[in-house]
Amino acid sequence: MNFASDNASGVHPEILAALSAANDGHVLGYGRDALTEAAQERVREVLDAPDAAVMFVTTGTAANAISLGSAVQPWQRIFCHEDAHIETSECGAPELFTSGAKLTLMPGDGGLIDADALDHAAEFWAGEGLGGGQPGAVSITNSTEWGRVWKPENVREVAAVAKQHGLALHMDGARFANAVVGSGATAADVTHRAGVDLLSFGGTKNGAMGAEAIVAFDGEMADRIAYMRKRGGHLWSKHRYLSAQFYALLEGDLWLRAAENANAMARLLGEGIQQIEGASLVQPVESNQVFATVPGDADDRARAAGANYYKWTSLGEETLDEVTLRFVCSWNSREEDVIELLTALRG
Amino acid sequence: MNFASDNASGVHPEILAALSAANDGHVLGYGRDALTEAAQERVREVLDAPDAAVMFVTTGTAANAISLGSAVQPWQRIFCHEDAHIETSECGAPELFTSGAKLTLMPGDGGLIDADALDHAAEFWAGEGLGGGQPGAVSITNSTEWGRVWKPENVREVAAVAKQHGLALHMDGARFANAVVGSGATAADVTHRAGVDLLSFGGTKNGAMGAEAIVAFDGEMADRIAYMRKRGGHLWSKHRYLSAQFYALLEGDLWLRAAENANAMARLLGEGIQQIEGASLVQPVESNQVFATVPGDADDRARAAGANYYKWTSLGEETLDEVTLRFVCSWNSREEDVIELLTALRG
Amino acid sequence: MNFASDNASGVHPEILAALSAANDGHVLGYGRDALTEAAQERVREVLDAPDAAVMFVTTGTAANAISLGSAVQPWQRIFCHEDAHIETSECGAPELFTSGAKLTLMPGDGGLIDADALDHAAEFWAGEGLGGGQPGAVSITNSTEWGRVWKPENVREVAAVAKQHGLALHMDGARFANAVVGSGATAADVTHRAGVDLLSFGGTKNGAMGAEAIVAFDGEMADRIAYMRKRGGHLWSKHRYLSAQFYALLEGDLWLRAAENANAMARLLGEGIQQIEGASLVQPVESNQVFATVPGDADDRARAAGANYYKWTSLGEETLDEVTLRFVCSWNSREEDVIELLTALRG
Amino acid sequence: MNFASDNASGVHPEILAALSAANDGHVLGYGRDALTEAAQERVREVLDAPDAAVMFVTTGTAANAISLGSAVQPWQRIFCHEDAHIETSECGAPELFTSGAKLTLMPGDGGLIDADALDHAAEFWAGEGLGGGQPGAVSITNSTEWGRVWKPENVREVAAVAKQHGLALHMDGARFANAVVGSGATAADVTHRAGVDLLSFGGTKNGAMGAEAIVAFDGEMADRIAYMRKRGGHLWSKHRYLSAQFYALLEGDLWLRAAENANAMARLLGEGIQQIEGASLVQPVESNQVFATVPGDADDRARAAGANYYKWTSLGEETLDEVTLRFVCSWNSREEDVIELLTALRG
Repeated sequence: MNFASDNASGVHPEILAALSAANDGHVLGYGRDALTEAAQERVREVLDAPDAAVMFVTTGTAANAISLGSAVQPWQRIFCHEDAHIETSECGAPELFTSGAKLTLMPGDGGLIDADALDHAAEFWAGEGLGGGQPGAVSITNSTEWGRVWKPENVREVAAVAKQHGLALHMDGARFANAVVGSGATAADVTHRAGVDLLSFGGTKNGAMGAEAIVAFDGEMADRIAYMRKRGGHLWSKHRYLSAQFYALLEGDLWLRAAENANAMARLLGEGIQQIEGASLVQPVESNQVFATVPGDADDRARAAGANYYKWTSLGEETLDEVTLRFVCSWNSREEDVIELLTALRG
Repeated sequence: MNFASDNASGVHPEILAALSAANDGHVLGYGRDALTEAAQERVREVLDAPDAAVMFVTTGTAANAISLGSAVQPWQRIFCHEDAHIETSECGAPELFTSGAKLTLMPGDGGLIDADALDHAAEFWAGEGLGGGQPGAVSITNSTEWGRVWKPENVREVAAVAKQHGLALHMDGARFANAVVGSGATAADVTHRAGVDLLSFGGTKNGAMGAEAIVAFDGEMADRIAYMRKRGGHLWSKHRYLSAQFYALLEGDLWLRAAENANAMARLLGEGIQQIEGASLVQPVESNQVFATVPGDADDRARAAGANYYKWTSLGEETLDEVTLRFVCSWNSREEDVIELLTALRG
Repeated sequence: MNFASDNASGVHPEILAALSAANDGHVLGYGRDALTEAAQERVREVLDAPDAAVMFVTTGTAANAISLGSAVQPWQRIFCHEDAHIETSECGAPELFTSGAKLTLMPGDGGLIDADALDHAAEFWAGEGLGGGQPGAVSITNSTEWGRVWKPENVREVAAVAKQHGLALHMDGARFANAVVGSGATAADVTHRAGVDLLSFGGTKNGAMGAEAIVAFDGEMADRIAYMRKRGGHLWSKHRYLSAQFYALLEGDLWLRAAENANAMARLLGEGIQQIEGASLVQPVESNQVFATVPGDADDRARAAGANYYKWTSLGEETLDEVTLRFVCSWNSREEDVIELLTALRG
Repeated sequence: MNFASDNASGVHPEILAALSAANDGHVLGYGRDALTEAAQERVREVLDAPDAAVMFVTTGTAANAISLGSAVQPWQRIFCHEDAHIETSECGAPELFTSGAKLTLMPGDGGLIDADALDHAAEFWAGEGLGGGQPGAVSITNSTEWGRVWKPENVREVAAVAKQHGLALHMDGARFANAVVGSGATAADVTHRAGVDLLSFGGTKNGAMGAEAIVAFDGEMADRIAYMRKRGGHLWSKHRYLSAQFYALLEGDLWLRAAENANAMARLLGEGIQQIEGASLVQPVESNQVFATVPGDADDRARAAGANYYKWTSLGEETLDEVTLRFVCSWNSREEDVIELLTALRG
């Protein structure tokens, strides 16, 4: 019963098999190989973005930081949610790769930035002159840190504000597959067709070993991203093994199948929790994460039964009698584990 | 009737005279001169801090950014008020000189950081592990961006929280003289004796041409600050003319006399505004800045009479019928100007 | 006949097998797993350095840049050979992770820094005061960019100069296994026992998929390196797959076996080239790289026979009739390929 | 007899008078004043560059670092002479303001970059791909660190190489007035008409207190420079006192008169030294600096007579029996001092 994180759940067998298959003789390094080209092409197809620049890295933090670094100047501000991973969990990687740009924190329910608040903040800072730090970009997370999913219309709303203020729009898609599946929209509709400029397309949490794609829908940004990736130490020499992971994920729609399982298990868990006396969901379950409060004894029983999951806190949160718990499902979560967890919680 | 800013009010004649007096023959550059040594010594005396490292720069932004850069690692957080000058008005200078540390914004009335909120935030981020960005320093502004003054006991309260979490405590004293005069405390009591580690001791807004002292009460930090100042392009070659300003400020207590006039004029203005029908102070007047709301026609009359001052907005502020105005007094503000302004406002 | 690079030669089957074996259930991420601990311990054993801090990353550039970033201040100088990889091939990664330290280039035959030149340069810059950029570290490459190997006594000589000037000593060991095998010394004797402070211990070029260890012989540096790794986006979430590679490399001495093959093949190739009319070695063959000049028609014949290798240029090199060629052998180079190449060159 | 440095020689009385004159009432800060506009316009006139962006700072290091920061990306290389001030004497300021670009050192007699060497280096690094660090800019110093002067035709030669490789051309004009006077060319002919893109136009060493102009001949760069200046803490609030210095320098051609005196005194000194038995010039005297070797007893006699000057070393220099000495003349050097120095040297 492991619900600690989708990065604790190992590598999908199809990805491992792809790594073995790629281990075939000598191949030029640094991405100058046919498999890399095929994987990049497959990303463009999946996103219906034939002109996009696509570059692979092995961590989500690298994908986010390089994307943002390519989009803003050091004296600019990046607007993001106050619970955004780039603010809370990346140790200043965006600041490193942007040479010191500021993250300006936005409110919004469930990790979804409030478009009006964004508009207000962008207008305010644009008016503050040289000293203020000019607005440069917006970063949204999809699915969010609270498991919520951006619908195309919501992305368009934020994108409209962004465009009006001349801001680049970045989407942190560490759980992009879960978001796409959860929204019912296409990958294209929820990204560039809605106004997204840069996407961190996550593979790692969805069954890869360590594989993320940086996608710049404006292909002109390719050079800038390539230099930043190299300079950050993120250009793999034996690049085929990174590309192989992404190719395997997209080929045969493994990425969607893996996310469908994770999301379905989360839905099942969420529905079960709502039926437990004294328990409730903190956020609607829209992807593969479930945030809930449960009575203390339920928590104790689940831990005793061997379930793994985290207590979740955010800065704004006051001390509560009922504590927020986070349960994350993944490509290999099984129905019997969810049922076992629910049984333990229920008592 | 100029109340736009204390940096609009020119150079005090005693400072200009000191510059002329310093213009005497050949003197070695880069601070290796007797006048620089004397000025440093005078700063140590005024602060009763015989072991402090003292280095001069020409702008408050430089003093703040170098101070903070000497105190934190790039992966750390600096806690400051949400209206702090280092956040709102320095174009990312702290990020530049810290190689990308984060500013984490704290609430608090009148620009005074709430010590409990600081404690909560420092504890939260200390617990967030590698990714979170470790707490590194606190920066407070004295007098604050809203004209409020830190009393020694309030500094001690924040310092206690800082020490408990291992944070350096920096004081942005762009208007330090106004704060000292306003608090009635000594410069020592409101800084190192209350737990301040680093002080930006402002001279420019108080009658200098461009002169600020970086004071590190732990003299061991001298080297680090010296390299940062040089690397930032802030080590003046004809250094005597920078030192001469600070020496003149401190000699004969010009710095206190200048601030006393500014504060007195602000007090007079504040008292007058309170007696105007429909006008009110936004913050108590404790130093040389007055924040007030006045009826629209009062504003119109004052502008028509030739008064200069700014409309003041901060991010959190909603659009109001009554607009906040800022009036800044300085070393050369005159009673007749204040009376003329009040007369115009009163109608 | 592939002699282009040791990063073109794929992953050793034992490493691939270790990745599959590691793919066993849920495991906590970010290095909090037993396999990571075991791999770190194995590195300490191999280096006979029980107190060393050991952290894994996936690229050599990351290992070098993070090592250097942990060792110097932004206003310092890092002395390295003028052909050092950190200067010529990392797109400024050391500058990024050191927040802008300078690389100061040293001469020396075959990529081996001349100790006297280092002494002269360190003394010069130490005397240049604030502006000069203070000496902070030395970085040597072992084996060098020209295939040469540092013997313990040569490391000691450079280390003595480094210690005298207070400089940290870093070893870029992208081909560390080849260097250890080539020198006949132990890993301990050529590193910390000779005065090395920081080692980039390479695995990728020696059969891993993407695995390098940052080793700080002073364990106190662990925190600094950990923050830098996270901030650089180089902390793998599914960390066990990175550790598994290193564990497999060191277990059963695969790292030495792999390097022995590569070095033996290079030696064979070097000996053969010396017997070709008009061909000669540019540097003695001490590890797995062979630098040679051969007559133009020999080059043509080898290319026509399907051999892959690079023409090698460095900045100082004048245009020559005879061009320097680089042949790199690796863990899977075969004797028959070497013979085939020699036959083609010989004509 | 002070020949230590032109920054030891105080402020020209006309500049001091201009500071006093500028001290007239309240004036808006941060450069929004008429005097700043007039000074900028005067710079444009003197350079015959009506569209240039002109911004003032107080140190030459700031002017250089901001200029370079506006011209290159962090992953690029800046080519400069191995004795360039930006490499030897600015503590990494260019690295700070460029977020870590590399300085690549060029040879050349007397601090004048050799155009062929530049061409060779630019071509080499352009061919080194992602890792190499792409060529971004060239910086030349005029007059050079060895007192030599760039003639328009020499600038054009370097500019042609720069343009061919897509490099921006920066001129460090800390002693620009001395260079213009020394070359006999106009300020326009030796800068933008010869292909210079960015000029650090120095005033401090030529009689100002602390005043340098950053000139971007492409006015489109104004925004970038303005943000960098603010972010670096280099935007003066009481800006009129910075502008007043530059206005006074250019008005009535004080800058040329001051430099003419300095150059004439240097020429006189140089001629005298050549007539001393056993003494010789290390470089031709073309501006206000004289580099010479003199017999040890001549040196002793001059020191005993109270002359101030520096022993000059550069990294490449071997220990010599005859030591290089640097004598710098300035706006207030007097013929009798030169004669007194020569008399002492001559014995």
